[in-house]
This record gives sequence, C-alpha cells and structure tokens, in this order.
Amino acid sequence: MYQHGGDIYNHKNMLDFSANINMLGIPKGVVLAACEGVALSQHYPDPQCVNLRQALSEQEQIPMEQIICGNGAAELIISLVLAKRPKKALLPVPSFHEYEQALHIVDCKILHHYLKEIDSFLLQEEFLKEIKADVDIIFLCNPNNPTGTLIEPEFMEKILRKCEEQDVLLVVDECFIDFTEESKDYSIKSQCKSTKNLFILKAFTKLYAMPGLRLGYGLCSNLELLQKMKEVSQPWSVSIPAQMAGVAALKETNYVKQSKELLGKERAYLIHEFEKLNMKTYASKANYIFFHAGSGLYERCYALGILIRNCSNYEGLGEGYYRIAVRTHEENRQLIDVLRGWQ
Amino acid sequence: MYQHGGDIYNHKNMLDFSANINMLGIPKGVVLAACEGVALSQHYPDPQCVNLRQALSEQEQIPMEQIICGNGAAELIISLVLAKRPKKALLPVPSFHEYEQALHIVDCKILHHYLKEIDSFLLQEEFLKEIKADVDIIFLCNPNNPTGTLIEPEFMEKILRKCEEQDVLLVVDECFIDFTEESKDYSIKSQCKSTKNLFILKAFTKLYAMPGLRLGYGLCSNLELLQKMKEVSQPWSVSIPAQMAGVAALKETNYVKQSKELLGKERAYLIHEFEKLNMKTYASKANYIFFHAGSGLYERCYALGILIRNCSNYEGLGEGYYRIAVRTHEENRQLIDVLRGWQ
Repeated sequence: MYQHGGDIYNHKNMLDFSANINMLGIPKGVVLAACEGVALSQHYPDPQCVNLRQALSEQEQIPMEQIICGNGAAELIISLVLAKRPKKALLPVPSFHEYEQALHIVDCKILHHYLKEIDSFLLQEEFLKEIKADVDIIFLCNPNNPTGTLIEPEFMEKILRKCEEQDVLLVVDECFIDFTEESKDYSIKSQCKSTKNLFILKAFTKLYAMPGLRLGYGLCSNLELLQKMKEVSQPWSVSIPAQMAGVAALKETNYVKQSKELLGKERAYLIHEFEKLNMKTYASKANYIFFHAGSGLYERCYALGILIRNCSNYEGLGEGYYRIAVRTHEENRQLIDVLRGWQ
Repeated sequence: MYQHGGDIYNHKNMLDFSANINMLGIPKGVVLAACEGVALSQHYPDPQCVNLRQALSEQEQIPMEQIICGNGAAELIISLVLAKRPKKALLPVPSFHEYEQALHIVDCKILHHYLKEIDSFLLQEEFLKEIKADVDIIFLCNPNNPTGTLIEPEFMEKILRKCEEQDVLLVVDECFIDFTEESKDYSIKSQCKSTKNLFILKAFTKLYAMPGLRLGYGLCSNLELLQKMKEVSQPWSVSIPAQMAGVAALKETNYVKQSKELLGKERAYLIHEFEKLNMKTYASKANYIFFHAGSGLYERCYALGILIRNCSNYEGLGEGYYRIAVRTHEENRQLIDVLRGWQ
C-alpha cells in the first residue's frame, strides 16, 4: 500500500495539497541543468558525485568527504539502515513513514514514542529517559512531518549528548529545515564534525520542488559508516540529470529567498483562516500545515477536486488529522473556500 | 574501490572503450522525452511506473503485473537479494561484479563456479551437478559480461528445469541480449509465465545508451517475490525523466535495427583485426569483445588516450584479459592502430 501524499497518478486532475513541495515549482535554471544532464546521459553517472559534493560542501560548510548523495533521501534512509543494521530503534510518532519501512528490512525492533496531542505533538524532556544503551538508532524529523514543528536547539543538543553517552546513532531528518526562518539556529549540522553519533538527512526534493528528479544527501563525520553505506548501494544511484540539477539548484539563492517570503505570508494567511474556522493547527514552521478537523474532510475535499493528506494512517494518529501544503494564494483561497463550506 | 568500466570522471578526455554502451548514443526521441520529464519533475514519480510497465508489457509480451522497474538493473539486483535473503548463491565466474556485491549485503555464502579458458569460458554441462537444494539463488548473465558469449537455449532450459526441481531461484541477466542477432531464440523470457523460479533482469542502459538516466526492469511471475522487492525499496526509485525516457525508447525500433546492423559489421571488423594480431577473442555475440593480449595493454592504451576495460580484477580471471566496447568504425580503427603498435 502506498502510504504517502503526492499520488497524482491515481488521483488525476486534482489540485494537490497532499505533497509538501515548494509552491514556486522547479527553478528554470534547474530544469535547464537537468536537461543538459539528459543530453550527457550516454555516460554512466559519476559514482562519487564529485561536482555536486563540492557544491554542497560550500553550501553546508561541511567537508566533502562527510557528504553522501543518494537517489532521494529515501534511498539514504534504506542504505543507512542496511549499513548500521540496528536491532532496536526508537521512533517518536507520528513521523515520516519511510524510517519504519526501512527498519523492517533488517527486522529491527521498533519502540514507538507517542507524541501527545496535549503537548501539541511536541517532543518532551521525558524522551531523554528512553535513550538507553540498548537503542541503536533514533530518527528525529526536524521540522517534523506531518506536524511541521521544530525541536528547540537546546533540547536537540541534550538529545545528541545523551546519544553520545549511550552510543546511539541519532539521525536528524532536516529535509524541510531550509524552509524555516530559523534554520541556522535550529539545524544541528554544526555538531556534525565533532561527533560520530549524528547523521543528518537532507533533500533537494522539497525546497527546489524537484521530487521527480530524485536527489537527497546525508552529512556525517563517521566515515566508516559512509563507507558501509556505499557498500550496500549500487555505485550509480544518482542520475546525471539529478547531479547536475543539484549543482544548479544551489545557485538559486533568489528563488529560495522569494520562496521563504511567500511561504511566510501564505502560511500566516492559512493559519489565520483555520483559526477563524475553529480548526486547530500546530505551529508549523515548515511549508505545510497539520490540523485537526474531524473525520470526513478528506472525502469532502476530494469530491471537490482537492487532494489533501489524510493523516489517519500515521502511526500515533487517529481519524480527523490532516496535512496540507502551503501553496499559492489563489490555490490557498480555493482550499479555504472548501473548508468554509464544509463547516 | 570502483570496479567497473566507464569511469570517465577519473579519466578525463579519453576515448572510452571501457563501457558497453550503444555506439549510436541516446536516440533524440529519448532525450526529448526525458527533458519533458524534467519539466514535470515538480511531481513525485509514479511509484507504480504504470505507463512504462504498460509499454514494456507490449514490448516483452509479459503481463504488466509481472514487470518491476528500478533505478537501473543495479538497484533491482540489490532489492532482489534483500527480498530473497539467500543463504547460499552459486555464481559462474568471471561475470558481472554487482551480483556478488549485493549478496554480501545479506552475508550470503558464495560458491564460485570457475569457467575455464580451455572451454572458452563457456558454461558446461557439469554445472548442472552444482544446482543442489541447498543453493538459494543463481545468477547467470546471458550473454555473459565480460565474455559476450551466449548459453545455448537447450542448455539454459535444462538449468531452469534443475532449478525448479531443487527450488532454486534462477536469475538470468539479459541486459545485453537485445544486441544479439539471436535474441528471440536465446532469451528465456517465454518461460517466465510458467515458473516461479525464474527472474529475468533487463535494462535500457546499454541498448539505448542511457546509463546516466538509470532505468532497468525485471520480469518474474512470482508476484510474492515482486511484492517483497517493493517492500525493501523506496516507492520513488525511478525518476520521472527515466520513466518517460523508457516509454520513448521502446518506440525507437529503427534505432535498434540500425544499431544491430552497425554492431554486426563493426564487431566482425574488430574480430578480424584481432585475429590478424593473433589476439584471442571469445565469440562475443554482444556489443563488446573480450580478448587476451598479455599484461600491460591497459597501460599502453591509457598512455595513448584510450580507456579499455582491464578484466584482471574479475573473479576467475588473471592478468592479460581485456574487454572493449564495439564503437564506430573510425574509433575502432584508432583502437586497432594502437593494438598494432603495441605488438
């Protein structure tokens, strides 16, 4: 069963609020670079992704040898799990489904840490007590998917220290962090160099609206782990168009600036409208909004040509929770109109 | 360590005979379709690859549900091994290195069956005796890489029958078979429907000269196995450009016809020249030629700007074996000039 948003193939001609993609669409420079890459594709891709990793190294201020690229972050989640072969994993839920899917491949035991509605699904200090030596790996999504909330930097640092103390691998999925205003303060990447217990996942998918090209990367100073990840993957997993698109995307600083400005405005508009409709939202800092509206809304929107993400199949959530991407003003207005009519 | 040909990134500005890619380059129709795919890549790829599998179903005359697509055949080798989790594998060698690489991920014990120079590295009847019930999986490459030789259809059928009898999964890698004149007689795919013990690997990579786009597929009527393969992979492994390129490639019937004609002519030319140089070749039916020429030739060619595949790192081969792709006449002439000078 397909468990994600963005399935426009089984739901044709819908206005898609279910995938968390930058509303501005792929930058032109990225499209051009990827097409140049297509024309060069009579060659195998560079297994080392040298040009891309060089560009990422500058962007992220992380040494090149501590960067690994993949066929989307989704591939890296799998190769990380195959390389690490954890026996026990600790997962706060609700969160991104693919962590659990990957852990099943190696028959890893999964401890769910249920985030509570009463805490607005925010991770609490009590989580620290669960980080014990028999846990091999933890996946934290920051900002979290589907809730969009951030873990405070001080708390994240406490978690990392506890992981070091207990020798647990902490995987922090920052695939959406570059949408946030506060990414510099909230990213844990500055800690990467000084600890072997941290792996940061990132992707081009969402920020540069290019999920169809498949490109993600990881930051980690545990070079032995990166080497093992390469041994459990094929050498050519990142296509030439994706590698070249990635290099071009990192030059799109204006696009990113404009995206964040628009996102801030439109997210504020949507949250304000949700409030007026008495639908509870959860302080999202990302390019999507998680909210509660009772059951039946997915079907209602669907009937009116709008695809939203029904979150009831997330571990740790029941009926009545939904996620929508923040889109352009006109589209957001359409959504709000539908919600208004539903109430 | 990178173990393959086609590494143009560490060997810049070389004439590359080391990668077995169609000499005609990517068809224009494929480039255009992939670029259309780039422009649509603000969407996630179709996890089911419906359009592509429909087109493949017609081409291969195999029901759509028996077709699985991957990020190159290389991804499918890994997901097949993760799904099957074999404990013991039987591998004739020399052969393609990635089978072994994938088997290491699941700590599979590997029995090498050494092909002998005295048999021109052709698989012999004695191989049947090694197909026992404690073997879980066999990988046969047909035509074989690096030798280019085909397994006779009657013998292949005997192997398959023995695999059924002993309940062994037979993986036949036919990634190069569509280059051969005799593909219809030599492919085992007509048996696919009637047995659960057969998995056929194919790729767009070589025939359509598109290794940079990453697209391979598998044919298998064991739907439970295909389902398991999906469970150990990410949903979006095949990019939109690759899916659209694949659909377009299957329409390129003239390109394929022209490729095979040119290949036949150029392969005959090269083999004739090798004979004149007293360099032993091994009856390749594929778009590459395996030959013996004593040690030092790789370095000699390299010094003159030509990259050939040094096969000494293949399990089961020693120094002095090489593989070259069949390229255009002018390029082939350049290579022969170098070989002539070396003697």
